[in-house]
Amino acid sequence: MRRTLLAAALSLLVALPLQAQQPTRIDDTAMAQAATLRERALADDTGWKVVESLTTEVGPRLAGSEADARAVEWAKAKFKALGYDKVWTEPVTFPKWERRSESARVLGASAQALHVTALGGSPGGRVEGEVVRFASLDDLQKAVPGSLAGKIAFVDYRMERARDGRGYGPGGRVRSAGPSAAIKAGAIGYVMRSAGTDSHRNPHTGMTRFDESLTPIPSAALSLPDADQLARLTALGATRISLQLDCGWDGEYTSQNVIGEMTGRTKPHEVVVIGGHLDSWDLGTGAIDDGAGVAISMAAGHLIGALPQAKRPARTIRVIAFANEEQGLWGGRAYAQKHAADIRKHQLGAESDFGAGRIYAFAAKTPDYAKDAVAKIAQALAPLGIEHREDGDGCGPDLSPFNAIGMACAGLSQDGTDYFDLHHTPDDTLDKIDPKALAQNVAAYTVFAFLAADADGDFGSAPKVPEVRK
Amino acid sequence: MRRTLLAAALSLLVALPLQAQQPTRIDDTAMAQAATLRERALADDTGWKVVESLTTEVGPRLAGSEADARAVEWAKAKFKALGYDKVWTEPVTFPKWERRSESARVLGASAQALHVTALGGSPGGRVEGEVVRFASLDDLQKAVPGSLAGKIAFVDYRMERARDGRGYGPGGRVRSAGPSAAIKAGAIGYVMRSAGTDSHRNPHTGMTRFDESLTPIPSAALSLPDADQLARLTALGATRISLQLDCGWDGEYTSQNVIGEMTGRTKPHEVVVIGGHLDSWDLGTGAIDDGAGVAISMAAGHLIGALPQAKRPARTIRVIAFANEEQGLWGGRAYAQKHAADIRKHQLGAESDFGAGRIYAFAAKTPDYAKDAVAKIAQALAPLGIEHREDGDGCGPDLSPFNAIGMACAGLSQDGTDYFDLHHTPDDTLDKIDPKALAQNVAAYTVFAFLAADADGDFGSAPKVPEVRK
Repeated sequence: MRRTLLAAALSLLVALPLQAQQPTRIDDTAMAQAATLRERALADDTGWKVVESLTTEVGPRLAGSEADARAVEWAKAKFKALGYDKVWTEPVTFPKWERRSESARVLGASAQALHVTALGGSPGGRVEGEVVRFASLDDLQKAVPGSLAGKIAFVDYRMERARDGRGYGPGGRVRSAGPSAAIKAGAIGYVMRSAGTDSHRNPHTGMTRFDESLTPIPSAALSLPDADQLARLTALGATRISLQLDCGWDGEYTSQNVIGEMTGRTKPHEVVVIGGHLDSWDLGTGAIDDGAGVAISMAAGHLIGALPQAKRPARTIRVIAFANEEQGLWGGRAYAQKHAADIRKHQLGAESDFGAGRIYAFAAKTPDYAKDAVAKIAQALAPLGIEHREDGDGCGPDLSPFNAIGMACAGLSQDGTDYFDLHHTPDDTLDKIDPKALAQNVAAYTVFAFLAADADGDFGSAPKVPEVRK
Repeated sequence: MRRTLLAAALSLLVALPLQAQQPTRIDDTAMAQAATLRERALADDTGWKVVESLTTEVGPRLAGSEADARAVEWAKAKFKALGYDKVWTEPVTFPKWERRSESARVLGASAQALHVTALGGSPGGRVEGEVVRFASLDDLQKAVPGSLAGKIAFVDYRMERARDGRGYGPGGRVRSAGPSAAIKAGAIGYVMRSAGTDSHRNPHTGMTRFDESLTPIPSAALSLPDADQLARLTALGATRISLQLDCGWDGEYTSQNVIGEMTGRTKPHEVVVIGGHLDSWDLGTGAIDDGAGVAISMAAGHLIGALPQAKRPARTIRVIAFANEEQGLWGGRAYAQKHAADIRKHQLGAESDFGAGRIYAFAAKTPDYAKDAVAKIAQALAPLGIEHREDGDGCGPDLSPFNAIGMACAGLSQDGTDYFDLHHTPDDTLDKIDPKALAQNVAAYTVFAFLAADADGDFGSAPKVPEVRK
């Protein structure tokens, strides 16, 4: 039944672009102004000051922690200080997970501490047992049920370094799917080589999920040198470890998406959406994940809003600092749900959530009638060293739920070569951001948002049937 | 009185080299054999296997900890497994310092954790107070007595990166002298920017000393990003932190210098001494500090000992794995004390304790009659990319007490450009060692020890009045 309805809806969706539609255009005046904004942004340090302020004054801001509330207040105040015309919040409610303490030790003749961090969503508890090493998630998933009874599973998969972050797909699956696979094989605990590309004693956290039918077990990530160590020890002989986590779920919490707008000149009720997520993991100060994204988008909106009224773009620039991305796109999903009826008012969206490396590519999946306008945006981005591509990374995690139901989106791909050296670790701190690369990002988002907001015509935002999610 | 005696002794000392002395010589056969050993060492992985074994199977080995005893057993067994002719231990007794836990937090509106580690020798305790930042030790030392009453002193000195590690002089003084300066100004606690050159959330530990008349205060090092953070916060306004250390002195412990010998062919009672220190700080696994030095010297002795009896050098190769270097050269001082009467039997000494970077320079301070032999050793080292210098780094910390009372010493200078990224941090782990650079070190020590041991004549070891130590 559901499938029949979906098929009918999809056929309707396919039919829509066939309607006659004027090409979307960006005029020369807008292009000239975009060029001015671009140079101004490159010389401006607003982005740096914003990320410095957030990471210093708020610091780590785990969703649901006391710092979450401080971050919300910070964002409201920062939007106002940056001259945003409207600032408001929209509630986002989610289950609250807390980390209190975590440790692990090799027992016996090679007794020593291991640096671990609990995976988000892990239960607390102390387990002790022999470690069984698997080179990959696949190998663990093939383990015979019961074969790990009383043991601790260790997936020692080494994530690939890549500019586009493609290594995080398989690396992240070790984190999301590993614990459930371990439980199915009978394990009492789970450890993994962090989904990261560095060589420091700083483990990478991140969410895991347990299949609903299973009883969760303590699950943690080892730093990469600790994973090396455990691999060597298990190769030498039977190795027992203890894993002690004090963490877990504790009720619900309501945070806020914090939204700032610079009102458009002629179509103030239509918006271009940019943003980042305000929450971070608790281990670092969330500089690259995602203080940078918040700063880039806040600074871009600020630069556009600082234009004289007559030079403002036609549409409104809406900047969203999303709540709780890390634990499951809670802010992005709440936004999509709340604004589902307004999809057509969303001209185009893009989120910055892949660090602070330079943007090297731009892509937007849009109907044919908008291709010229997209090419114009690409042309204005080219002096920043940004290549126009047909296919990109999508519009960032928090806008993906809204994109799934119809909002048109663009992607500004950042160089993520070093991103997974720092991602979700204590090392995600301000010193890892290059101010010049950050300014390049601000320039790109400024150009992008300005031109998209000033275009004559749209980029194809229209309601569609949501994708069926697993 | 003491000065008069010393002057008399020194005039005697100056007189000694004036006696007629045959030049020390190294013959062509020895040079040819050194060349063979050099190439053999470059292709050999004994050094790598030794440091892998020590850092993996023993792991961190803080002097006085249960792992100290395991390290001693490991060293005895490893010497035997490597074919050393004689293996023994010599006791080294020292006060035992323990680290149990450590934490720090910014309090108030920017509440967040700071990554700290207690300085060795610090007392435990919890202090809470406003932070007063000083850009240098000098600035703190100028603080008016009583001006820091109830406050926590923070020295934010940034150590210089250099190949020869010269930045550690001023950087290390912030650690050794800072706490006492803070106490004199009335402070209740002391924190410092780690004496390091990295940008990771891994603070650098190391010993501090309190002036005897003072009551020690909790003293810790911040990781470099945490020092950045605290500097920014104090610049924004009054900043209070809490510092909680559970650590301190706990009685005495007796560890062992572990010694292995490859017996010389014709002068077995004369020795060339090489070595490293067996203890490490507890945060890392002591790979570069100083598993590498132990491995380099053990492997060098092994390669020389593996020669057919007829090709062995004239003198014995003595390899020492020193106890407790980190907390005050306890092993080195014990060795000097025990063997003071045998200085002339020590042909020449060199310790490896500056990581695992390539050796780039060789120097030996010797009498004129030994210059030709030193030049021959330099000539045999040159193909390894090692330059002959007149002045070097001395013979390493653990041999410096023996050198002070007369043993001739040589220095093989390692490239320490990255050494203080890792030194005394959790990041001092095996993955930081380049196996090829390690093999170059082994080759250099093999060549050096072989030629020094086979030389006809000596390098000037003779008792002298100990230097007056502060």
